[in-house]
Amino acid sequence: MQKPPTIHTIQPVVSSRLFHVEELHLEFSNGERRIYERLASRGHGAVLIVPMLDDDTMLLIREYSAGTGRYELGFPKGKVERGEDILEAAKREIMEEVGYGAHELHLLRRVSLSPGYMQHHTHLILARNLYPHRVDGDEPEPLEVVPWKLADAAELLAQDDFTEGRSLLALYLAQDWLKQHQR
Amino acid sequence: MQKPPTIHTIQPVVSSRLFHVEELHLEFSNGERRIYERLASRGHGAVLIVPMLDDDTMLLIREYSAGTGRYELGFPKGKVERGEDILEAAKREIMEEVGYGAHELHLLRRVSLSPGYMQHHTHLILARNLYPHRVDGDEPEPLEVVPWKLADAAELLAQDDFTEGRSLLALYLAQDWLKQHQR
Repeated sequence: MQKPPTIHTIQPVVSSRLFHVEELHLEFSNGERRIYERLASRGHGAVLIVPMLDDDTMLLIREYSAGTGRYELGFPKGKVERGEDILEAAKREIMEEVGYGAHELHLLRRVSLSPGYMQHHTHLILARNLYPHRVDGDEPEPLEVVPWKLADAAELLAQDDFTEGRSLLALYLAQDWLKQHQR
Repeated sequence: MQKPPTIHTIQPVVSSRLFHVEELHLEFSNGERRIYERLASRGHGAVLIVPMLDDDTMLLIREYSAGTGRYELGFPKGKVERGEDILEAAKREIMEEVGYGAHELHLLRRVSLSPGYMQHHTHLILARNLYPHRVDGDEPEPLEVVPWKLADAAELLAQDDFTEGRSLLALYLAQDWLKQHQR
């Protein structure tokens, strides 16, 4: 294992409403110096939830996504708010986005998005034992909720609008978890 | 399927060396208006490659990642440069990062990183039929190349420093591809 670089300073570069760019002045153990930019994460990370309506059925949403500029199919997700723990955030997000609460939540994995450039982390969570409970979120239009059978996971992977790396990964991790715990 | 929102304008907000924030002034089909920020992608996307040294062995790298501020284990990756197609970019990146060229490349999937907030796409690629060919990259220190047996994929998934969503997903997709094409 290499000796980590020394961080001489971390300086803010530019900020907008949502994004905060900072630069790290680094000196590697061999004396090489670099200035790297990254997106700072000021919040508490995000959650992405695989809600199981029953043992065979996942709930997805189809939502307009401003980044890619089109409707994308994926699992419900959102930011962890101040004072929430990650499981509370997961419960709230599925109430807002698919209209269910969950009695049972399991952390599948904490993942980084782009570790070279972003401080951000997302917690991938499996939700089971759902009960109807809708809470209004701040969505501009009603989200389309899309039930999908686990048995049809291959068809989901082949969908043209199911592109988000974290959602694709969560599908694999949920399948692994269910295989280990159910059968 | 819902009628997509009208994009009234797209305006630059702030820019740094690497990051370009813009805002979209949207009007949803129900008349709701929103201003959303996103990271614009000015380049040609990125590639992340699973290089197979032989049918049983993947090559990973361990690299200092300024976003998370620590060494991270993951597959080689990088930006697609101007004038390159994605398979050329994949070949160049593995020459620079693991010291091999590849006679055989397969696109596993094109994924979005965070479709709500980022325009960015990454192409996940499987590389086989490798041959030694090192090209100098712009790394500040030599990258540690880490061979990993496919049979030990569960141990890789359990590694504390293997956190990147795209690398985790690429591992699953590569296993699926190899199962379908080899055995």
